[in-house]
Amino acid sequence: MNTPSRRRSTPGLDSYPAVAGNGLLDRRAFMRGGAAVIAAVTGYTVARSASAEPLTDDPWSRSAGGISSSTEGRSRFEEKVVRTLSNPKGEPRTQHARTPHHLLNGTITPNRLHFTIVHNGTPDIDPARHRLVIHGMVKRPLVFTLDSLSRYPMESRLAFIECGGNSAPLFSLQPVQANVQALHGLVSCAEWTGVRLSTLLDEAGVDPKAKWFIAEGSDTAAVSRSVPVAKGMDDAMVALYQNGERLMPGNGYPMRLVLPGYEGNMQVKFLRRIKLIDQPAMTYYESRNYSPLLPGGKAYQFYFVQEVKSFITHPSPGLALKGPGFYEISGIAYSGNGRIARVMVSADGGRSWAQAALQEPVQSKAFTRFRAPWRWDGGPAILQSRAWDEAGNAQPLRAQFVAERGETKTVPSAGGFPNQHYNSITSWAIDGKGEVKHVYA
Amino acid sequence: MNTPSRRRSTPGLDSYPAVAGNGLLDRRAFMRGGAAVIAAVTGYTVARSASAEPLTDDPWSRSAGGISSSTEGRSRFEEKVVRTLSNPKGEPRTQHARTPHHLLNGTITPNRLHFTIVHNGTPDIDPARHRLVIHGMVKRPLVFTLDSLSRYPMESRLAFIECGGNSAPLFSLQPVQANVQALHGLVSCAEWTGVRLSTLLDEAGVDPKAKWFIAEGSDTAAVSRSVPVAKGMDDAMVALYQNGERLMPGNGYPMRLVLPGYEGNMQVKFLRRIKLIDQPAMTYYESRNYSPLLPGGKAYQFYFVQEVKSFITHPSPGLALKGPGFYEISGIAYSGNGRIARVMVSADGGRSWAQAALQEPVQSKAFTRFRAPWRWDGGPAILQSRAWDEAGNAQPLRAQFVAERGETKTVPSAGGFPNQHYNSITSWAIDGKGEVKHVYA
Repeated sequence: MNTPSRRRSTPGLDSYPAVAGNGLLDRRAFMRGGAAVIAAVTGYTVARSASAEPLTDDPWSRSAGGISSSTEGRSRFEEKVVRTLSNPKGEPRTQHARTPHHLLNGTITPNRLHFTIVHNGTPDIDPARHRLVIHGMVKRPLVFTLDSLSRYPMESRLAFIECGGNSAPLFSLQPVQANVQALHGLVSCAEWTGVRLSTLLDEAGVDPKAKWFIAEGSDTAAVSRSVPVAKGMDDAMVALYQNGERLMPGNGYPMRLVLPGYEGNMQVKFLRRIKLIDQPAMTYYESRNYSPLLPGGKAYQFYFVQEVKSFITHPSPGLALKGPGFYEISGIAYSGNGRIARVMVSADGGRSWAQAALQEPVQSKAFTRFRAPWRWDGGPAILQSRAWDEAGNAQPLRAQFVAERGETKTVPSAGGFPNQHYNSITSWAIDGKGEVKHVYA
Repeated sequence: MNTPSRRRSTPGLDSYPAVAGNGLLDRRAFMRGGAAVIAAVTGYTVARSASAEPLTDDPWSRSAGGISSSTEGRSRFEEKVVRTLSNPKGEPRTQHARTPHHLLNGTITPNRLHFTIVHNGTPDIDPARHRLVIHGMVKRPLVFTLDSLSRYPMESRLAFIECGGNSAPLFSLQPVQANVQALHGLVSCAEWTGVRLSTLLDEAGVDPKAKWFIAEGSDTAAVSRSVPVAKGMDDAMVALYQNGERLMPGNGYPMRLVLPGYEGNMQVKFLRRIKLIDQPAMTYYESRNYSPLLPGGKAYQFYFVQEVKSFITHPSPGLALKGPGFYEISGIAYSGNGRIARVMVSADGGRSWAQAALQEPVQSKAFTRFRAPWRWDGGPAILQSRAWDEAGNAQPLRAQFVAERGETKTVPSAGGFPNQHYNSITSWAIDGKGEVKHVYA
């Protein structure tokens, strides 16, 4: 029998004072007495006191429950937890399905809620017939079935995938009134398992003159993107499993390219061909769609990395506060350049900042959940988060970002992004009633 | 633009010889040239050579695909990937649903495939009406709604949950011919997010004389188990989320106790009451069902920890090998006492062993995926894995385990376990045709 040692006693009531304006408490409150201390500090207890036996038996405690099924379905009370669709009738244009981050917690996005974008519908691929070819500037062109790929050494890793157009509404001049799902729902995080692309490239024998490869999908949009061979030999993966099970159809079933930290569109789904070439192919998606505009009218030729970013999911629009007192501020941080090093949180619109606690283990190019204890006094507040990565990059402040990258009068609509790669700060204003609104601050 | 440095060139062909009998290769083959090297070493290439353009367009590349839905469903080609049910008609007895580990990979069990056991059906709980009470030997009895609990500081962690009766068929005198799902399907691993129980116990103020608590579920079986307060103050959690979304009904929706590393039955689902007491309550499940028998007729009074264990999922019964050559041996290891420190793999029934690679980051009381490169020569082989944890515990060899814990002539059936807590070795025999069979070796 395991007998862990008894936790040391709760520290004194004054141990964890506010460390930044408008009620932000020391994150170390999480490490010892937790909410008990905070409750005592703030004079506010979240739970009600109970009489010795306040519970009556509910109906579900009085009659037999339901039959287990071969795949576990969600509770009927969770049917509202869904992705929002940009094109629910499947008209002949791009379809977006956005992750409801305000209704989730932790760091994993469950497979049914991982965001997806498809440009001409989700193909219904027979895995027994699907093939992957590696060809072009290689010694030995190779063809792989799903079965033969499954015999190669595999690896598993967490990786976020984010559309280059995620958060595009924040380029608009006025803050779009929408929730975190509408603003930031085109990013998700899963455990991907598959074969390192370098293993396959080594077997094919890459010509040293090949500096790029084109990855091509087998959907009818035939999404094709040029990727540096250096990335292919680094941490690129041909993924076969998503959170333990085979890929979801919208995430590239039966196989997709995963390029940890790179723009989602490059991580080609329904992966069919990898062709080694000596210069970028300048395909549709890289020359027209994903070349972010700059204020002077020029554009980036390539912008591969999804840079350091964070946003608060709790509280956020639609999750109103229910009276003053203790709350946990919680959100997601990630960087295409490595691990998150630090997240700071403000409750006064950026005038003062408190360091958030990071959920361990912090993993490279994956979601990191951050949390900060907060005592809301019932007055107006503006919540913000700002992240740093281990490569030393800071999430830019909004004024700095807008000066460098511009903004636009038009509210971006699905299918026609005026710009991409927004990674500046998101601000939530809280009013005296506890309602949460998107603002620029 | 990110430009990772070019990988160093492939080492010589003789760099990775066999390191144990019957074709086990050095795990370090994974770290550099990977399969290319192994293929060269073994003279066997898994992929076929391709002509420059061997692919024709498949039907799904020629017409628009399907419409995205608000929750992503699985491919119709994956409909066979399901849990197996011990009681599919929901007769008035226990229902088991087992995880298909041979069809999964990585370390996360997706929510629809996490194993579940319910003793009187799965309750249909209205989360707005559900309450949790902490009472008994406390200063301030407390009652929590789901909303109030959601305001407390949370944490996320991976944790495996295993039924004490998992692997019970391996107590039988003869090896049961069944696959890894039937033998070991009552263990799964997820990211759980919720409130540390210690936070709530601190707020209630535990009487120092209270050494135990009873956790009680609100299903009609009213599963009740005694847990040491020391565990409650250590890493116990009231979990609200499973892999990012609210708990699945069969996993305790809307809240369950998670006691990392402890027997699954103690991690009470549909958690309703926690009562602090000064001695164990000797409830039905702890005094009748989960007190493992010993050969002399005595029984353990308590056996809380799921001890160090591993099994191979690929290959395994039902996943026949398709001709000689390179394969990856892959499986799952875990320990209720902390992190996995080492896994050894044998291809000759335990005469010689090679160290497996462990998927990083190795996390405490969670699944660790291990992998070992193997060149099958087409002859008979017996595959085994053996794990060690950071506390120094070794997974016992079968002879040692049987001598200590006994075996039985009856094949255990669902609902009447003759014994629990099997954590010895599983052996898969491979014949000349590549078929895989369960054996004792």
